[in-house]
Amino acid sequence: MEKFTTQVDFIIEIDKLKSVFRKSLLLDNSRQENVAEHSWHLAMAVTLLEPYSNFKNMNMLKALKMALIHDIVEIDAGDTYAYDTSANKDKREREEKAAERIYGLLMNSQQDELKNLWHEFEERKTPEAKYVDAVDRFLPIMHNYLTKGLNWQAFGVTPTMVLTRNSPIQDGSEFLWKFVNDIVDEAKEKGYLIVD
Amino acid sequence: MEKFTTQVDFIIEIDKLKSVFRKSLLLDNSRQENVAEHSWHLAMAVTLLEPYSNFKNMNMLKALKMALIHDIVEIDAGDTYAYDTSANKDKREREEKAAERIYGLLMNSQQDELKNLWHEFEERKTPEAKYVDAVDRFLPIMHNYLTKGLNWQAFGVTPTMVLTRNSPIQDGSEFLWKFVNDIVDEAKEKGYLIVD
Repeated sequence: MEKFTTQVDFIIEIDKLKSVFRKSLLLDNSRQENVAEHSWHLAMAVTLLEPYSNFKNMNMLKALKMALIHDIVEIDAGDTYAYDTSANKDKREREEKAAERIYGLLMNSQQDELKNLWHEFEERKTPEAKYVDAVDRFLPIMHNYLTKGLNWQAFGVTPTMVLTRNSPIQDGSEFLWKFVNDIVDEAKEKGYLIVD
Repeated sequence: MEKFTTQVDFIIEIDKLKSVFRKSLLLDNSRQENVAEHSWHLAMAVTLLEPYSNFKNMNMLKALKMALIHDIVEIDAGDTYAYDTSANKDKREREEKAAERIYGLLMNSQQDELKNLWHEFEERKTPEAKYVDAVDRFLPIMHNYLTKGLNWQAFGVTPTMVLTRNSPIQDGSEFLWKFVNDIVDEAKEKGYLIVD
C-alpha cells in the first residue's frame, strides 16, 4: 500500500504539467499550448508517423513512454524556447535537478525506468530517441506554418535558424526532414518567415 | 506523399481535443481539464499502475494507444458527464458517428487499427480494455476527492452513485476498486460526498 501511495503522489504531482505553457499556440490561435496536451499530441504523432521513421522495428512501447514523459521535468524547469540561446545554456542543469526531485517521488524500479528513458531521449543515440525527437521538432514547425508564422515573426526567427536548430530531424526521419525543408521554402514565399 | 498528407490532416484535426472540456477540475481548482491533457494523464497512470491490474502480461503498447485515443470522438460528440443519464442515452450513437468522420481522415490500415482499438475499449471485454477503463474511472474519483468533492456536490452525486456507476473498476483492478471504496468512505466522513 505504501508503494501504491508513491504512485498516486506522482500522478498527482504531474497534474502540474497542465499549467506549464509553451510558446506554441493551438492551431485555432485561441491560446498557448500546455506541456501535458503537447505530450499527448506528440505521442499520437509518434504513433501515426512510425512508417516515416528512419528505423524499422523500433520498440514502440518505449517510444510512446518516452513521448509521454519527455517534458515532465518542465514542471520545475519551465519550458525553454528553442530559439532562446541564453536560457538554453543552463537548461540541462535545471532539468537534471527537476528529474531528481520529480522522479524521486517514485519507488526505485519505476523511478529508474522513467529517469533512464528521459536520459535516453535527451542523449538522442538510440533509434527511438532519434525518432521521437524528430517528431517533437516537427510538430512546432507544422504549428508555426499553419498559424502563418505568428510565433516565428514574434521572436524574429529566420529560415536559417529553423533549419540549423532542427537539423537533428534528419537523424530520426529523412522523410520528415525533406517535408520540413519544403515547409520552410513555402513559409518564405508566403512571408511567414522573415528572410535572413 | 498523399498518404502522409492524410496523417498530417489527422494530427491537425485532433488538435481540437485541446478545446473540449470535461467536468473535472485541475487539482489546483484553477480551471476545467481538457480532453487532450486528460488523455495524457490517463496514459501516464496506465503506465504507472500496471502492477495493480488484474491481468499479468497485458499488451502495454495496445493499452497505451487505447488511452491516447479513447476520447478522440469527443471532438464531435463532446464530453458526456458520467452522471448525466439523459445525455448518456444517445452517447453511443453520437460517438459512432464521430468515429466514422474523424478516423475516416486516415488511410485504411491506420483507420482500422485506431477505430478497432476504440471499439475494443468501449466493449470492455479484453484485459487491456478492462484495465484502461478502470484507470479512466479511477482518475476523476481521485480528482474529486482531492478537490474536496466540489464537483460531486455541484452535481448532487451520492456515494451510491459513485459506487454503482464505477463498479466496472473491479473488472480491471480489484486493487483500485478496494482503494475507491476507501476513498468513498473517507469522502463521506469528511462531508465531500452528500450521503444518500
